[in-house]
Amino acid sequence: MKKIKIFNDPIYGFITVENSLIFDIIEHPYFQRLRRISQMGLSYLVYPGANHTRFHHALGCGFLMKKAIDTLRMKDVNISEEEEEALYIAILLHDIGHGPFSHALEHSIVERVHHEEISLHFMQLLNQEFEGKLSLAIQIFKGEYHREFMYQLISSQLDMDRLDYLKRDSFYSGVAEGNINAERLITMLNVVNDNLVIEDKGIYSVEKFIVARRLMYWQVYLHKTGLAAESILVKILKRAKELTKKGKDLKVSNALQYFLATNISKDNFDNTVLELFSKLDDFDIISAIKLWCEHEDFILSYLSNSIINRKLPKVVMQIEEFSSTYFEEIQQKVKIKYELNDDELAYMVFKGKVRNQAYCKEREQINILYKNGKIADISDASDNLSIQALSKTVTKHFICYPKNIL
Amino acid sequence: MKKIKIFNDPIYGFITVENSLIFDIIEHPYFQRLRRISQMGLSYLVYPGANHTRFHHALGCGFLMKKAIDTLRMKDVNISEEEEEALYIAILLHDIGHGPFSHALEHSIVERVHHEEISLHFMQLLNQEFEGKLSLAIQIFKGEYHREFMYQLISSQLDMDRLDYLKRDSFYSGVAEGNINAERLITMLNVVNDNLVIEDKGIYSVEKFIVARRLMYWQVYLHKTGLAAESILVKILKRAKELTKKGKDLKVSNALQYFLATNISKDNFDNTVLELFSKLDDFDIISAIKLWCEHEDFILSYLSNSIINRKLPKVVMQIEEFSSTYFEEIQQKVKIKYELNDDELAYMVFKGKVRNQAYCKEREQINILYKNGKIADISDASDNLSIQALSKTVTKHFICYPKNIL
Amino acid sequence: MKKIKIFNDPIYGFITVENSLIFDIIEHPYFQRLRRISQMGLSYLVYPGANHTRFHHALGCGFLMKKAIDTLRMKDVNISEEEEEALYIAILLHDIGHGPFSHALEHSIVERVHHEEISLHFMQLLNQEFEGKLSLAIQIFKGEYHREFMYQLISSQLDMDRLDYLKRDSFYSGVAEGNINAERLITMLNVVNDNLVIEDKGIYSVEKFIVARRLMYWQVYLHKTGLAAESILVKILKRAKELTKKGKDLKVSNALQYFLATNISKDNFDNTVLELFSKLDDFDIISAIKLWCEHEDFILSYLSNSIINRKLPKVVMQIEEFSSTYFEEIQQKVKIKYELNDDELAYMVFKGKVRNQAYCKEREQINILYKNGKIADISDASDNLSIQALSKTVTKHFICYPKNIL
Amino acid sequence: MKKIKIFNDPIYGFITVENSLIFDIIEHPYFQRLRRISQMGLSYLVYPGANHTRFHHALGCGFLMKKAIDTLRMKDVNISEEEEEALYIAILLHDIGHGPFSHALEHSIVERVHHEEISLHFMQLLNQEFEGKLSLAIQIFKGEYHREFMYQLISSQLDMDRLDYLKRDSFYSGVAEGNINAERLITMLNVVNDNLVIEDKGIYSVEKFIVARRLMYWQVYLHKTGLAAESILVKILKRAKELTKKGKDLKVSNALQYFLATNISKDNFDNTVLELFSKLDDFDIISAIKLWCEHEDFILSYLSNSIINRKLPKVVMQIEEFSSTYFEEIQQKVKIKYELNDDELAYMVFKGKVRNQAYCKEREQINILYKNGKIADISDASDNLSIQALSKTVTKHFICYPKNIL
Repeated sequence: MKKIKIFNDPIYGFITVENSLIFDIIEHPYFQRLRRISQMGLSYLVYPGANHTRFHHALGCGFLMKKAIDTLRMKDVNISEEEEEALYIAILLHDIGHGPFSHALEHSIVERVHHEEISLHFMQLLNQEFEGKLSLAIQIFKGEYHREFMYQLISSQLDMDRLDYLKRDSFYSGVAEGNINAERLITMLNVVNDNLVIEDKGIYSVEKFIVARRLMYWQVYLHKTGLAAESILVKILKRAKELTKKGKDLKVSNALQYFLATNISKDNFDNTVLELFSKLDDFDIISAIKLWCEHEDFILSYLSNSIINRKLPKVVMQIEEFSSTYFEEIQQKVKIKYELNDDELAYMVFKGKVRNQAYCKEREQINILYKNGKIADISDASDNLSIQALSKTVTKHFICYPKNIL
Repeated sequence: MKKIKIFNDPIYGFITVENSLIFDIIEHPYFQRLRRISQMGLSYLVYPGANHTRFHHALGCGFLMKKAIDTLRMKDVNISEEEEEALYIAILLHDIGHGPFSHALEHSIVERVHHEEISLHFMQLLNQEFEGKLSLAIQIFKGEYHREFMYQLISSQLDMDRLDYLKRDSFYSGVAEGNINAERLITMLNVVNDNLVIEDKGIYSVEKFIVARRLMYWQVYLHKTGLAAESILVKILKRAKELTKKGKDLKVSNALQYFLATNISKDNFDNTVLELFSKLDDFDIISAIKLWCEHEDFILSYLSNSIINRKLPKVVMQIEEFSSTYFEEIQQKVKIKYELNDDELAYMVFKGKVRNQAYCKEREQINILYKNGKIADISDASDNLSIQALSKTVTKHFICYPKNIL
Repeated sequence: MKKIKIFNDPIYGFITVENSLIFDIIEHPYFQRLRRISQMGLSYLVYPGANHTRFHHALGCGFLMKKAIDTLRMKDVNISEEEEEALYIAILLHDIGHGPFSHALEHSIVERVHHEEISLHFMQLLNQEFEGKLSLAIQIFKGEYHREFMYQLISSQLDMDRLDYLKRDSFYSGVAEGNINAERLITMLNVVNDNLVIEDKGIYSVEKFIVARRLMYWQVYLHKTGLAAESILVKILKRAKELTKKGKDLKVSNALQYFLATNISKDNFDNTVLELFSKLDDFDIISAIKLWCEHEDFILSYLSNSIINRKLPKVVMQIEEFSSTYFEEIQQKVKIKYELNDDELAYMVFKGKVRNQAYCKEREQINILYKNGKIADISDASDNLSIQALSKTVTKHFICYPKNIL
Repeated sequence: MKKIKIFNDPIYGFITVENSLIFDIIEHPYFQRLRRISQMGLSYLVYPGANHTRFHHALGCGFLMKKAIDTLRMKDVNISEEEEEALYIAILLHDIGHGPFSHALEHSIVERVHHEEISLHFMQLLNQEFEGKLSLAIQIFKGEYHREFMYQLISSQLDMDRLDYLKRDSFYSGVAEGNINAERLITMLNVVNDNLVIEDKGIYSVEKFIVARRLMYWQVYLHKTGLAAESILVKILKRAKELTKKGKDLKVSNALQYFLATNISKDNFDNTVLELFSKLDDFDIISAIKLWCEHEDFILSYLSNSIINRKLPKVVMQIEEFSSTYFEEIQQKVKIKYELNDDELAYMVFKGKVRNQAYCKEREQINILYKNGKIADISDASDNLSIQALSKTVTKHFICYPKNIL
């Protein structure tokens, strides 16, 4: 009797897992941990529906990968059973290296270690545990397998990750305009010379995908209130590290304690560190912050309160850079009102910038396959001046400071 | 006891009509006729779900108008009860002048009379019947009412007509990517200096609306197979008129017979003509074409068969113009194969072009209201190079000829 | 290069047809005719969204059949390529014998010939044309193939026809409560001893399916206004036949003329009749009725007007039978007001009854497969008193008469 | 300038809050706490999409309340501005007394204090803070206001709470069959003699609502794996209390520590307790359980692991009671395998029962308003034998024990 596992999904209906290796990977504590990591960081403070997790996203990616494999096979692209399993595993685990709050704390818990490197680390450990059965998945994930399009299904402009997260984030946040038609895009995939291409009738769908993605960036991922919340989160961790290094006991979980007290970068990120990292999730962070709401350090408790009780700062965002006099004026007011030194002030008033390039031909081009067999980058299609326009990087500047000071 | 009428709508759920004048207008045979006019012409030959009618579209526009009025009132824009009723009536009747197959036959049944002029004609007749109660609606419809934004709710880039038809056509055709978030766009409407504006937080939604509209044009409204079907339909009518003028009795309904035999233009479009026009709908046309499938005239029967049994011609569409040698070569082959004279040939092989300008600042600009109170056209917003790009007119050329001749 | 055909469907997204025989069947004029037959008869007069066709429904059934086959194969039920093709064809053609307005005129155009018999007739003709390739499909359709579950996929309580039409009719009518989860029900199908069963975890889904079906019957299929419209339609045809037999020329299409003038029953329904039948669709009927709006026969024109301009009669519906005095009283008033003889009166005032049995164990039971391997009818499941209750036949009586006479 | 707050909602689109008192209540830390309480307890371990919160549910209830008020006013039910505000506040706060994991821990944190009593406590505290502005809301919530239907909008078979939670839980869990048509049900509400009634055309909708609710109970709320997870959660808290009372320091948050160490019931639930209660949420519980995964007490760590790593026990559920020999046999095996004493055994092997009565006429009847003005309970409607059947209470028994012991 086959072990078939069915997950309900509000988006795709049912996600069916038939493969028992994949099933065992899903049941592994490393993967179960993703249930406790918010897919969109603190965006739920802006979009109250956005409580979905990395766990569900990973399953969704697997679902789309299966669709893509079915489509390509229908178009006579040869994909073996072994490759199918490897592709599924690779997409399932591509994000397993995410720490608490996904991207929000990516460079706060550890330093300059990208979550994909940690994903690879996890995959290698799992490969040992599963006796080498993940080797092909790892090869594809690293881009070392000779069939390039398989890597592109994992990581490219139209990879299954991106198709799922845009659809899922738009769905849960309720920003319906960000919705993309993942199914249709997949229907139009094909492979030429071992590269993923989109058939030309899909050209407007791709354009719409790029516009939807840009909209999601400005309206959701880079929403000014969300940005403020995440900046505060980063600053809380920074303050906590400082205090820890000054010898304060912040009474947090052992795993979090370790990362507050130790500087971890690529060089010292070994299996012991990974084991501790695998214990960390959103719950360690939020319960610590709840505790810190009453901490004696003013900065720590002030910022913690602003997250827990959603007393977020004022944020101004604009295309132009802020003048230094304007910024200094605000600093001055806050400094006086809250009686802060310069070090403390940097936690309360700060600025930054965000960038968004909807389409980047150089980095990750989208190839269109024309009926006559020719292949060209989408931005070179004569009708797509708009995609050329979307290739321009847009930068916005923001500034955060306590409300009610002006 | 109030007479409340509820229409089910797969898109909006329920469309409620409380007003008894509006209810009576809906019940009028002129309006009921819209039940027999396909909203998207012959597009159902390409998208089998697209069987929705002008009737349902008109009700949908009314629903959105109510939403828009509610939103504007919430923002302290003053709209009286009388104006509300007039706005509802004007949008309900804006398309009542459409003839069979909506746009497809707009210039075949009558000549150079735009459907909006016929709508106005109908409205004036109804105004007599309803003893002047439509006067304000007519004033708004004609753009003669002093509050300009009211006309813009009926006819502009973001009017209720456009919001409903894009949503509805995308829904029924199953081209989900054309879906627009009408509700959200309406939420962001406001009125400044008697002009409709969109609040600046809606800038990306508007951009997405324009892109969705462009996609709908290329993928649906200007779909090459749909174009071919509509071209054939026009040619069938043309041939039928020719034969009628040569004295053949084509055995069609009296109303259709009249329009086949008589050249109607603005000058002779009077109440008698309108009465006959009001009898015409898709059923006259399709049952005539069914009959003509067995007509002795080869051209008429050939073209009729291609619609009824969906034996549509080959269509090639491209950005570049077709060379005349290429075109003549095809003409030659068809001429020989079917033994045609030049006059007949023009029914079997033909070319044309279509144009699409997603956004036209000159004609109908979309004004964005910024937080600082400034108003600017959306294409002038610094971040919207893509909208500037979308302002370019794209032209495509097509050619149609019988399959299996090459 | 494989010929893949993709149909957009607002419900399932994309319906893909890969098989070239199936593709050719879809292109056949017999099948294309279904584009001109309303799936829900005249229900669009009550639910303005319900303009979908038999054509789209048949494609939807094919889509679900493919899902069912995939599911059963995943559960190790062996289905050969040849059987798959036959199942697809059988479900695609199961309704091809429907005449204009589907069930509404089923016994008016011809007498006592069920649409399924006509479907079989069509299938046999197509089988000749396609050189015997439909033989297995026909065997399954007739219930003569040894693998019983295949027939059950075509015709039983949970066949693909029913799953699609409930979902589709609920979707297009906008009666969202009738929506069923076809996908989930299919996921729980299995085959035991060559019979279709539902796994026990699906017991509540089946119950909900039965309740949804009952709701659709009372709220949509047996909606009193819809019933009235269909009764009028039947009466119009009856009157037209009477007048035709009296020698009046009703100026309708040849095909319709034939059926008005000739009594067709099982005995004389041969290939010639079928050929004429294949020319008939909704357009013949509606354009005839439009014509008849101005016919000299009062009854014919009165009834025709009530359909075309939606001036439908008053309908009263109730559980109790109407008393004969009540009925006669109404008859009397109408008779006097419209100056009718008894024969004519029967067209204007009439009564009838409708029955609805949500679940019938005797006719078509739904077998539940329990984890311990036992199989039992769903109404015998201890927890399902409600299904037993739903097995009771409910009868309602209705009466129709002109408005404004009381 | 009016302060309008818009929340995105994947279900209703936009939830608009215009009232500044309501806005301030939403911003209050008591209400913000609901962001950290899972609406469906641990159901996300079964349905990975079910991560929505009490916060979002409460907003959804407010949205539906507004719809209901609009509908009733349209039907000439008089509702003042003040009553509208009070109704909105009452439904917004009806669940504010929920502790961590909603119902799952309702009787573990405190003893025999129903969450609605705690809600009332919170409302009274807020009423002080907002200077009496919640008095009418409290009166309605307590059922003490003279207009009975207002209480019924807050608490009855068809209250806004139930309409939202069924819709929302079905949506997020992906159990699409549980979906109810809240909008349609509300459309058919009316008030007669100060009591909420449903117009008779809604009779099948109500029936479907009851069936959907029953399905949600068996398939979601009483899903055997979900039940197991919640039972384990309760047992973890019980064990933690035991250990705390034995003097062990479990290193948890101060608030949780308090409730582990103190028996709180109605009698000693004062403002101080409420203040501590207001600090508790899912994060306290899950981070404690994460810690306890490595606790020296075998039972505590075993159970904690089974939640965190989703190593849930085996659960058998059936209609019949389990025989005591069967139960004892399992106990014996577990006792030996894990070397447990009887006290410990009770944490590892346990049984229970669940009950579900879909409709209870005695407790909360649903009144149907017939066209003739009569009112009757829905189960007395002649056609609704199924609702009578649904009134029967169904009991199921379950048993839980460690996997792999048999």
